[in-house]
Amino acid sequence: MALIGAELKLAEPGVVEITLPYRKDLTQQNGYLHAGMVTTIADSAAGYAAYSLMPAGSEVLSVEFKLNLLRPAKGESFLARAEVIKPGKTLTVVRADVFGISETGTRELVATLQGTMFCIARDRG
Amino acid sequence: MALIGAELKLAEPGVVEITLPYRKDLTQQNGYLHAGMVTTIADSAAGYAAYSLMPAGSEVLSVEFKLNLLRPAKGESFLARAEVIKPGKTLTVVRADVFGISETGTRELVATLQGTMFCIARDRG
Amino acid sequence: MALIGAELKLAEPGVVEITLPYRKDLTQQNGYLHAGMVTTIADSAAGYAAYSLMPAGSEVLSVEFKLNLLRPAKGESFLARAEVIKPGKTLTVVRADVFGISETGTRELVATLQGTMFCIARDRG
Amino acid sequence: MALIGAELKLAEPGVVEITLPYRKDLTQQNGYLHAGMVTTIADSAAGYAAYSLMPAGSEVLSVEFKLNLLRPAKGESFLARAEVIKPGKTLTVVRADVFGISETGTRELVATLQGTMFCIARDRG
Repeated sequence: MALIGAELKLAEPGVVEITLPYRKDLTQQNGYLHAGMVTTIADSAAGYAAYSLMPAGSEVLSVEFKLNLLRPAKGESFLARAEVIKPGKTLTVVRADVFGISETGTRELVATLQGTMFCIARDRG
Repeated sequence: MALIGAELKLAEPGVVEITLPYRKDLTQQNGYLHAGMVTTIADSAAGYAAYSLMPAGSEVLSVEFKLNLLRPAKGESFLARAEVIKPGKTLTVVRADVFGISETGTRELVATLQGTMFCIARDRG
Repeated sequence: MALIGAELKLAEPGVVEITLPYRKDLTQQNGYLHAGMVTTIADSAAGYAAYSLMPAGSEVLSVEFKLNLLRPAKGESFLARAEVIKPGKTLTVVRADVFGISETGTRELVATLQGTMFCIARDRG
Repeated sequence: MALIGAELKLAEPGVVEITLPYRKDLTQQNGYLHAGMVTTIADSAAGYAAYSLMPAGSEVLSVEFKLNLLRPAKGESFLARAEVIKPGKTLTVVRADVFGISETGTRELVATLQGTMFCIARDRG
């Protein structure tokens, strides 16, 4: 996350936002943000959102996610906003939307992720 | 891809392999390769594999993919191997397996991706 | 759809609802609605929602979908509500939520689907 | 499953096959097997395959699955073949391929599913 310049912007119970400024070395062949980078911020936001509802001392792991790329990932910066759909003791289902943000501040939805997070509960005495 | 140190290892019609050496700045909180990096090499391999069967002058875009994380992504290096399941004029369905490779060369499957690639055909005269 | 007793309830541009009354022969081993039936109404609603925004004479085909099962699919009846996230000339991305509805009319989200629909355009003169 | 005429054909540890004869009332608007029915047999085979590796007395639930529809689901009958990719104490990842089978016995891959199954362990004394 530090490597690519992503930053935690908002962290409320069940809702997390992460931002990522545009950088040329994060793009694919057409100059759009690489799908892997889109996924990196979407999955990170999703994991934190799930984690924010887990008991203290827990750890969170991604089980699986599915990402639909809706538009070319263009923008001066990018915002991943994740929201928990269904919290659970073991599994938490999360959605994350990724927006491209233009110079003038307009947001456009570029990708959406639906995924499952696993809670490793703290068991020690 | 250059940023994270990934390299194209094999490119045959419909089959592509990409390798990524372990680096600490690509890991998540437990020291395993970040799911976003796992996705980056899996999606890149999948995209190239689809592209390898497209007509000359085409461009390839990821439509969507789904990744299951099967084990902690541990390894000295990582290998993403993608194979086309169903080529198509417009849409190509691809699978990619990501392996963690130990010091002694043992491969362990850490993730598997199933996705759809879009072919932008060259139309100009 | 007729076989299982599903009915179109609402059809607006980009939004479709389908209902399914509970029937014992649609359940799995625990008495909950079978995941296949949950998918049947979710995918049908998603397909119609996409179709509702396509040009006259088009046909719609499901490319892929991903379903998360959030709770046991219990209910007197079930409602699938689909909404288009991103319409497109060739591909349309849709989300569908499936609710179990109790005797007293309470809705509970039991599953959510994210998928891609393909538009086969009419080409004839 | 009985409703639609599906039958368990093969059940080995980690591998299950289910067949479904063609029936007009299981098709969508083009006469192909409805994606919901494709999913029903794929998910059922996937669930059984996971279940076949779980401890006695366990129950299995589908967590999520993703299905890619590769070709029109045509055939005299259909075969879903599921195989466990990664068994686990809590979560098991499974793949299922669905084939359309012609009059002459030719198999054609029409869909492929990747999903996660949950093991509810028996805890009682």
